[in-house]
Amino acid sequence: MKNTDTLVAFQGKMGAFSEMAARAYFHEGVAVAPQADFAALFAAVEEGSCSHGMVPIENSLMGSIHENYDLLLEHNLQIVGELKLRIVHNLIANKGVRLGDIRYILSQPPALAQCTQFIRSLEEAEAVVAADTAGAVQQLKESGSRDSAAIASTQAAIDYDLEILQAGVENDHQNYTRFLVVAPRGVEVEEAAKTSLVFACDNEPGALFKSICVFALRDINLLKIESRPLTGKPWEYAFYLDLEGHMGQESCQRAVRHLEELATFVKILGSYRVGETVEGKVRAKKE
Amino acid sequence: MKNTDTLVAFQGKMGAFSEMAARAYFHEGVAVAPQADFAALFAAVEEGSCSHGMVPIENSLMGSIHENYDLLLEHNLQIVGELKLRIVHNLIANKGVRLGDIRYILSQPPALAQCTQFIRSLEEAEAVVAADTAGAVQQLKESGSRDSAAIASTQAAIDYDLEILQAGVENDHQNYTRFLVVAPRGVEVEEAAKTSLVFACDNEPGALFKSICVFALRDINLLKIESRPLTGKPWEYAFYLDLEGHMGQESCQRAVRHLEELATFVKILGSYRVGETVEGKVRAKKE
Repeated sequence: MKNTDTLVAFQGKMGAFSEMAARAYFHEGVAVAPQADFAALFAAVEEGSCSHGMVPIENSLMGSIHENYDLLLEHNLQIVGELKLRIVHNLIANKGVRLGDIRYILSQPPALAQCTQFIRSLEEAEAVVAADTAGAVQQLKESGSRDSAAIASTQAAIDYDLEILQAGVENDHQNYTRFLVVAPRGVEVEEAAKTSLVFACDNEPGALFKSICVFALRDINLLKIESRPLTGKPWEYAFYLDLEGHMGQESCQRAVRHLEELATFVKILGSYRVGETVEGKVRAKKE
Repeated sequence: MKNTDTLVAFQGKMGAFSEMAARAYFHEGVAVAPQADFAALFAAVEEGSCSHGMVPIENSLMGSIHENYDLLLEHNLQIVGELKLRIVHNLIANKGVRLGDIRYILSQPPALAQCTQFIRSLEEAEAVVAADTAGAVQQLKESGSRDSAAIASTQAAIDYDLEILQAGVENDHQNYTRFLVVAPRGVEVEEAAKTSLVFACDNEPGALFKSICVFALRDINLLKIESRPLTGKPWEYAFYLDLEGHMGQESCQRAVRHLEELATFVKILGSYRVGETVEGKVRAKKE
């Protein structure tokens, strides 16, 4: 997977969990390009300024990241890989600040939601919303605050040279985020493959059931199903499916052709190897 | 629906869209009880300090509000009603502030996400995350800021006596939020009914397909399906289903008994009348 032309777009600032995921999936020294938001990430890969994008799609505690499902539908990219990253949240503060000094805990809403028990245990402290986790750490560093802390990755603490007051402050240590790797062109996969696709069907009795039948009739296992509203058509849905197998297999091709007879549209998002579950890798402090 | 004992819990501050939904569903003068977060809302209804809760479950642009799906599973409440509220976002500022003065636009993340096109059109302004929409307006009022605006409901502008600089700033006017009304006990429904339930099945080939079959075999139409991770079991899912019909019907009872044979658990969340789609109602300024 090492390739000098690889440049991986991710959302957030350096030190974000997405950056750790990119280093774990490719290699520690891979070139990365931080993006302000997910739309910019998809655009960077589609326009070719980046070769790949690292897209968080689902968290084991919080569920799907819907914006990215929508962007997969809108953009002309393929899913080429998957990774499940263990998410360890840390309470990070300026050096010398003690737990009892903390009145404000900054982080982005999903991270705060994953650490509610710990935050509640600090009776004097309240949660404050920030735009991203590593950005919250940067803000602390710049303000030099003695009464605030941030919740973010180990990497963010290293980058801004702040102290981890307490590691692993998440409610449930079974906290994983599933990332998809996107690229302009699909890859060929063989074993242990998964395919993601999206379709819509008419809003009539049995339509969803018949659509799912095309896979059951061919013994293709469904791994996940997710409905999303279609923009501009309130209460009509697109269905995102993950299934076992890849589009090189005749059974999958036939099932999709069958689905096309029933659905108003079908889009294949990509076939890819089932991802490993990993702990994040930290790198040396950034320049 | 008028009842002097009715006290409706909602999340947010007075002027939140949830408050407008409560007034549209019950009646304009209904007693309401603002709650700090959704967990507090569910607790207030379960403990009996409130008779009902107004729970946003899905937005036509953004999709499901997952925290509330999880809370429906955790708490022992029933869904007794539904309402679809048209969401109109307004740019609100202190009196005399002009569009060209604005550098910061405050609102909660879903509202900001629904207004990205308008925000981008104000080249000098950047979006700032706030904990809730009406709270952002209150903050403006208190600070007297001349360079900030908030995105919130018409009701919030009335309550804090601020100016609506521009109405309807959402990207897509087809912007609706579906609310569920929860209560300690279920209601009997007859026509135009819907039932919501949640189930989990073993992670084995065909399990989801078989589960959905129990409804198709009885000509029961599925309206929505949503998978959510089970806490503490990464990548195992609970499935939330909305179906046409109510639990007073024998076909629905039989389908659920059949589902119980196949699933690891089944929980009926409630049968209720299909909700109307309404414009929000504003009330006079609060005291």
